[in-house]
Amino acid sequence: MNNNSVGIVKPHFFTFAEPPQEMPLDSGGRFGPITLAYETYGELNDRASNAVLIAHALSGDAHVAGRHSAADKKPGWWDYMVGPGRPFDTDRYFVICSNVLGGCKGSSGPTSLNPHTGKPYNLDFPVITVGDMVRAQARLMDHLGIERLLCVVGGSMGGMQALEWAIEFPQRVACAIPIATTCRQNAQGIAFDEVGRQAIYADADWCEGQYSSQGRRPVKGLAVARMLAHITYLSEESMRQKFGRRLRQKEAYGFDFRTDFEVESYLQYQGESFIKRFDANSYLYITKAIDYFDLQRDFGTVEKAFAHVSARFLVLSFSSDWLYTTAQAKEIVRALKINHKNVTFCEIPSSYGHDAFLIENPQMMKIIADFIGHVYQEESAR
Amino acid sequence: MNNNSVGIVKPHFFTFAEPPQEMPLDSGGRFGPITLAYETYGELNDRASNAVLIAHALSGDAHVAGRHSAADKKPGWWDYMVGPGRPFDTDRYFVICSNVLGGCKGSSGPTSLNPHTGKPYNLDFPVITVGDMVRAQARLMDHLGIERLLCVVGGSMGGMQALEWAIEFPQRVACAIPIATTCRQNAQGIAFDEVGRQAIYADADWCEGQYSSQGRRPVKGLAVARMLAHITYLSEESMRQKFGRRLRQKEAYGFDFRTDFEVESYLQYQGESFIKRFDANSYLYITKAIDYFDLQRDFGTVEKAFAHVSARFLVLSFSSDWLYTTAQAKEIVRALKINHKNVTFCEIPSSYGHDAFLIENPQMMKIIADFIGHVYQEESAR
Repeated sequence: MNNNSVGIVKPHFFTFAEPPQEMPLDSGGRFGPITLAYETYGELNDRASNAVLIAHALSGDAHVAGRHSAADKKPGWWDYMVGPGRPFDTDRYFVICSNVLGGCKGSSGPTSLNPHTGKPYNLDFPVITVGDMVRAQARLMDHLGIERLLCVVGGSMGGMQALEWAIEFPQRVACAIPIATTCRQNAQGIAFDEVGRQAIYADADWCEGQYSSQGRRPVKGLAVARMLAHITYLSEESMRQKFGRRLRQKEAYGFDFRTDFEVESYLQYQGESFIKRFDANSYLYITKAIDYFDLQRDFGTVEKAFAHVSARFLVLSFSSDWLYTTAQAKEIVRALKINHKNVTFCEIPSSYGHDAFLIENPQMMKIIADFIGHVYQEESAR
Repeated sequence: MNNNSVGIVKPHFFTFAEPPQEMPLDSGGRFGPITLAYETYGELNDRASNAVLIAHALSGDAHVAGRHSAADKKPGWWDYMVGPGRPFDTDRYFVICSNVLGGCKGSSGPTSLNPHTGKPYNLDFPVITVGDMVRAQARLMDHLGIERLLCVVGGSMGGMQALEWAIEFPQRVACAIPIATTCRQNAQGIAFDEVGRQAIYADADWCEGQYSSQGRRPVKGLAVARMLAHITYLSEESMRQKFGRRLRQKEAYGFDFRTDFEVESYLQYQGESFIKRFDANSYLYITKAIDYFDLQRDFGTVEKAFAHVSARFLVLSFSSDWLYTTAQAKEIVRALKINHKNVTFCEIPSSYGHDAFLIENPQMMKIIADFIGHVYQEESAR
C-alpha cells in the first residue's frame, strides 16, 4: 500500500425530519429534527454511481480517514482503508461515513438539545434501532444525490447496518460487506452489553441519566463498561501474546490493590481514554440498538430476511473473533445461499479477535479492494 | 445415586496462629490469630487415613453438604457429591471443607475484627495467596489429627488449592483431583477479575474499602462484578440454550432501559442474590489470590513445580469451559507426565461451561468415585 492519506478533512452536518415531518421510528414514535454528522472523501462521479457508505461500530464516529488539522496526532479510525490507492480508493470512489443516530459525535443523540426544552434529551431521547440508524443514513444519501450506493461496508455494528441497508433498500445497494458481525445478537452478547449498562446505572453520577443537568458524568461506570467490552474485542491468544502475566513496572507482586499486571494497566488505560471521548447515555442507547438487532425476529427466519436483497455480498469473519464468530458469519452466508444470492465468504486468519477488523490486514484489504473493484466495473457497465 | 443426605450439619471454628506465633505469609508478613470455619461429614477412621479435603471456589464456603437446619431451603454447594453412597462416601470417608483464609463465611478475612483495634480489618487485612490458604488448611488438618489426606479435591480456585497442596505437602496427599482449573491464571482471567475489582472500586459506597465503618456497602459494584463473572461461568452454548433471545415477561421490545431479555433478568438476579451473601472486600482479596496463582512463576517452570509431588492425580476439565479450558488442564497433565507422575486425565463433555463442575454430572461422579475408591484401597494396603 502507498502512504496516500486523504489529508485534512472536515465534518459536515445535515439536518432533516424537521417537525411536523419527523422520521418514524421502529419504536412506533416519530422523531425530529435529526442531525447527522458526516464526512466524505473523494468525489461523487457524474452518474453518482461510485458512492461507498462506511458504517461505524459502537464507539466509532464519522471520522474514518485523514486528519481534522495538521496538528492531529491520529488519523480517522479506518484511515488505512480510505485514500488514493487504498481499498476504498478515493481516486475512484466517493466515500461517506456518518455518525449514527443516537451517537455522541455530532449526530442527534441523548446529549443533543431538545428544542422543546432547550436542555439535553438525556433519557427522553427515543430508544432507536439499527434500522432507524440506517433509515436516517438513507435520508443523508438522498440529500447527497445518491440514489444507489456502490457499497455499504462496516464491521461489528457497522456490519449490522450493512445487512440492514441491503434488506431495507434492496435497489439502493450494489454490494454489501458485513465484517465481523451477526444477523442476530446472541445471548452472550446481550449479557456483556447488559453488564456494561448496569455498570453505568450503578454509578451514582449517572443520576438516572440526568447527569448533564447536574454537572456530573458517570465516568467510573462508563470506564468499567469499556474495560469489560474491551476484553471481548481481544482474543485469549492476543491477550496472552500482548501481555501474558507480565508485571507492570515491578519485579514482584505488590501485595496490595494497586496495579500488578500489564493487562490491568492496559484495560485501565482503555477505560480512562474512552471516558474522555464518549457519552455514557449514548453508550446505553447504542448497545440497546445492538441488542435489539435480530433479523430472525423481524422477518420470521433469517432466510426470509434476505429473500429480496439484490446486492452482492462479501461476508468476512476473523478466526479468533469470539464476540461475532465465524459460525455467526456462516449463518448469514447460509441464508443468502438458500436464497440463491451472490455471496462470497472468507474467514481471515487472525489472532486479534474481534478487533481484527480495525487492524491493518493485507488479506482483508486485498479481498475488499478486489471485490469492490469488480462490482464497480459491473455497475459501470449497467 | 441414592438420596442419602448427610442430614443436619453444623459449622466448626478453629483458631490458631495466636501472637506471637503468627503464620508467615507469601507477602513476607506474618498474620494471626487466624480462624477457619469448617464443616466435616462422616467419621475419621482409627488410622486417620480416610480424610478428604474439599477446597471451595471463589464464592464458595465450608458448607459443602447437608443443611444447617431442617428449615434450610438449599443444601450445601456440592451436596450431591458428599453423603452415604455418594462419590465422597461418608460411610467410608471423613470429608472436610474449610472456608478459605480471606473469605467472608466464618474464616478470617477483611470483615473480621482486628483485635488490635476492635474494628474490621478492611484493607488492613493482608493480601493473601492460594499458598497461604493452603498452609492455613494444613494447620486445621494438624488440629484434626490428619497427617496425610486421602484426597484433596476442588474446582476452579479449589483446584488451585488441590495443586498447591500436592506440591507444598507432597507427603501429606495421597491423591489430588484438580477440576476445571489452571496452574497459572492467564491474562484473560486476570482481565475479567480486574474489571470486577474496578466495578467495586467505582462504587461510591466502597469508600476506599472502609464501608463497614460508615454503615455502607458497595452492593452495586459487587453486583456488577458478579454479573460479569457469571458470564464467564457459562458457555455461549448454554446461554443460547437457556435463554437465547427470549424476552422477559413481554411480547415486544420495551424501547426503554428496563429489562427486555431473560438473560438480563437472570444476570440481575445473580447479582442481587450474591450481594446478600458476599462481602465486596473479600471479593477483592480472593480474586487477587487467584490472579497471583502462577506455579510457573513460583518454580521457574510448570514442570519443576511438580517435580516432587507424590500424589496420584485425576485432572478433569469440561469441554465447554472457556474460563479454565481443557488446554489449560492439559498443561498440568503434561507437566506431571514429564515428571513421570501418576496422572489420569479426562475432558468431560458438557455444555455448561465452567459451572459444569458444580452441576450434577454422572460421568464426573463416577470417575471421581472410582478414582478415590481405588486410591483408598491402595492406601489401606500401605
